[in-house]
Amino acid sequence: MSLASPLTRTASQTLTEQLAERFADRIRNRLLAPGARLPSVRECARQQGVSPHTVVAAYDQLLALGLVEARRQRGFFVRQEAPPALRGREAVAARGAPAPRVAPAAAPVSTVLAAKPADASTLIRGMFHRRSDKPQPGMGVLPPDWLQSTFMPAAVRRVTTTAALQEFSLQYGDPAGDAGLRRSLAHKLAGIQLEVGPEQIVTTVGATHALDIVSRTLLRAGDPVMVEEPGWAVEFARLEALGMRVLPVPRRADGPDLAVMQRYCEAHAPKLFVSVSVLHNPTGYSLNPASAYRVLQLAQQHDFHIVEDDTYSHLASAHATRLSVLDGLQRTIYVSGFAKVLAPNWRIGFMCAAPPLLERLQETKLLATLTTPALLERALAWCIDQGQLRRHVERVRVRLDGARARAVKLALAHGCTLAAEPAGLFGWLDTGVDTDTLTQRMLDKGYLLAPGSLFHARRQPTTLMRINFATTQEAAFWKVFSAVRDKG
Amino acid sequence: MSLASPLTRTASQTLTEQLAERFADRIRNRLLAPGARLPSVRECARQQGVSPHTVVAAYDQLLALGLVEARRQRGFFVRQEAPPALRGREAVAARGAPAPRVAPAAAPVSTVLAAKPADASTLIRGMFHRRSDKPQPGMGVLPPDWLQSTFMPAAVRRVTTTAALQEFSLQYGDPAGDAGLRRSLAHKLAGIQLEVGPEQIVTTVGATHALDIVSRTLLRAGDPVMVEEPGWAVEFARLEALGMRVLPVPRRADGPDLAVMQRYCEAHAPKLFVSVSVLHNPTGYSLNPASAYRVLQLAQQHDFHIVEDDTYSHLASAHATRLSVLDGLQRTIYVSGFAKVLAPNWRIGFMCAAPPLLERLQETKLLATLTTPALLERALAWCIDQGQLRRHVERVRVRLDGARARAVKLALAHGCTLAAEPAGLFGWLDTGVDTDTLTQRMLDKGYLLAPGSLFHARRQPTTLMRINFATTQEAAFWKVFSAVRDKG
Repeated sequence: MSLASPLTRTASQTLTEQLAERFADRIRNRLLAPGARLPSVRECARQQGVSPHTVVAAYDQLLALGLVEARRQRGFFVRQEAPPALRGREAVAARGAPAPRVAPAAAPVSTVLAAKPADASTLIRGMFHRRSDKPQPGMGVLPPDWLQSTFMPAAVRRVTTTAALQEFSLQYGDPAGDAGLRRSLAHKLAGIQLEVGPEQIVTTVGATHALDIVSRTLLRAGDPVMVEEPGWAVEFARLEALGMRVLPVPRRADGPDLAVMQRYCEAHAPKLFVSVSVLHNPTGYSLNPASAYRVLQLAQQHDFHIVEDDTYSHLASAHATRLSVLDGLQRTIYVSGFAKVLAPNWRIGFMCAAPPLLERLQETKLLATLTTPALLERALAWCIDQGQLRRHVERVRVRLDGARARAVKLALAHGCTLAAEPAGLFGWLDTGVDTDTLTQRMLDKGYLLAPGSLFHARRQPTTLMRINFATTQEAAFWKVFSAVRDKG
Repeated sequence: MSLASPLTRTASQTLTEQLAERFADRIRNRLLAPGARLPSVRECARQQGVSPHTVVAAYDQLLALGLVEARRQRGFFVRQEAPPALRGREAVAARGAPAPRVAPAAAPVSTVLAAKPADASTLIRGMFHRRSDKPQPGMGVLPPDWLQSTFMPAAVRRVTTTAALQEFSLQYGDPAGDAGLRRSLAHKLAGIQLEVGPEQIVTTVGATHALDIVSRTLLRAGDPVMVEEPGWAVEFARLEALGMRVLPVPRRADGPDLAVMQRYCEAHAPKLFVSVSVLHNPTGYSLNPASAYRVLQLAQQHDFHIVEDDTYSHLASAHATRLSVLDGLQRTIYVSGFAKVLAPNWRIGFMCAAPPLLERLQETKLLATLTTPALLERALAWCIDQGQLRRHVERVRVRLDGARARAVKLALAHGCTLAAEPAGLFGWLDTGVDTDTLTQRMLDKGYLLAPGSLFHARRQPTTLMRINFATTQEAAFWKVFSAVRDKG
């Protein structure tokens, strides 16, 4: 059952069953977080266009499933604890964090609400299920039709001849990744003035895998690590799952808040700083040279590594300031990938580092996945070598510029303000209302949003949200958006 | 430069340079472990067919590179510490284990030598580089020509039409893995009496990734975990890299040593047992039903999980005793993959578990790699659905039976004895000499062996080694082997 369709009685499911399933799905995917209150019976009946009786029956089913609990006089709430089947050892392992996972901030960062470490990541899972055929403004990638090209199938055909398949499939392959792709990447990286040889590159299962490998290699459980906030939910969730102490560093237009970083360095001696310097997610900010230099100075003084996540590189200027370029990979590890511009499901990312460190990173890759699929890596190499990827990216950027202009105009016309100068793929909007609640309401209409709480180390209500410019350039979305928001 | 070729002066490299590079490569890949002694100048000159002067010059280059150190009157040794470039923070992180990584054995297991945790895994890296065109008896996979088929390219063509490529490439895809493949796997697993639905399966980047995900999900740094010994080096290395306390359980012909497990349970309360029940690597042993039942009883009494690595499943009987089948995935997680029979570089593995645990495993997958490439997963599904994989595996098994018979006969004829009844892909041989030394000597001849020390939680000299039956069925290898061994 789609979460978006209006409820209508069918031969196989009653309205009650459909409504219960709708909520059960959201709870399982943490689109309704543990502790969240379900709408009142009256409110839900109005929202869903069903009778209060149907809502009561559906809520009873959720109770029986152990997904919600009733609190006297207050309504129905998503259970804080795991459902019965998950109790015992499982539940203990899931919840029993050995120590507070977010360190006391050296600077007063923001009010911290109690939240389970996994919340953000489980919420993200919702983002991988296409919920309706409407645009999904909360998604972090370009829509599939933007990524279509004739060269990609051509590239795949070249690497899937019978002879090529034998070569790319029947042995484990090079632990560093396909040598052809690493040569192409080295050449491509010269374009942003990152001077690396193929031997300084190791391929990964997307940039996510590279970031995971870097964390596992440089950190041990309990180590303090600085991460920009707002920032990408999967990064927070992964570090917390690895047992690290996350130190959130406020991200400003020109770079990370250096005063906060300085205090963290003095108080906690962090081992790593995770940064999206260019076209930061979710704000679209890009680091300026003076901030970059000071960040590198801090790293030197306080002896920490920096992993620079340049996932949005393709959409940015070749001349943007990058820490890895300035530093020449002395204390930095450069990470990027191709999910944003070519083929998200090919899962091709890579990391560059100084040779002795890269050797350790490659070893972690080997322990985690042995090697990566060379077939797709070689197809990507062909796309790069033929100049096809570059021309494709130019087309995408022109198209995105247009979409951004239209989306910004519509957002402003519908009463939102911009919390950051629009750039790249994402807009960081102030909606004026709590975006967690807004997200729930918009789900009923078939739209998945990315509420601002998702981008904080500890989820907390906020009026901010991230929009994808590619999927918010149509008036239809904004009409629904403002109607839902204003209904309150 | 191949490690196997005889040294001959070339236009671009002197003999000295070639010899230095040969040793540098081995040291970097830990085929020469830290602390190992290089051959004496005289011995090396004889082995390599060069003058003593060339050897002295080459060793000087290695000294200059910081890879070896000279000890007065004793010769040259691989440096115990990292080379200068790696010093400081890096070296500390690499060596400064927070606590002993191998727990004191509850039972007197075996003498433990000091060894750096990473040794085994770095040695394994050598196994991914094809070192010569000779058969590689130490490799853990079937040779590429054994895996060739016409159906694999046909399967890939079906999923690489332009329309299919768009479908499988341009979105992140299902976090659980391609739904088509999960249906095929569920059907296939019914053949070994493992009754699971597609929703109880999550695909991974090979079985290695699945084992990694299970460890990360169920364990925290410092947790005790039982692993069969001898066992697969990557498993030991990964658990040690994750900071776990490895409790090695001797593997017998009928299953793990239950008395040792019992004592571990009482003394350490381990959280997980990692087991290759069927066609165990490296011995080829398969678990018997009575042992299986007692292992499950122990798991229940002492409340630990079991991850059953069924990587060699395809080469075993469908009726072999499997813990996951007996237990119905209550305390067990079932892991397998296709690297051994179809396409090692496709990196397709999977894990099955009870729903609440599987959800946590899927979440770890998401944090580690987001999704996995659906294109190859769907191609594999086609191979399974058409019955092509089953017929291919039958052919491989018949061929392997023949190879095994020949290899065993040759091994016995060349003075080896079998430490385990031959079955499956691997033979576990007693050579009568130290196999670490033998491995070094055989490398000079272009053959990579898998010395027994590789299969222990702590490397220790042993006369045992693992052979791959597919690559040891020719007399040529055994002739070189016995010549090298007998030269002493």
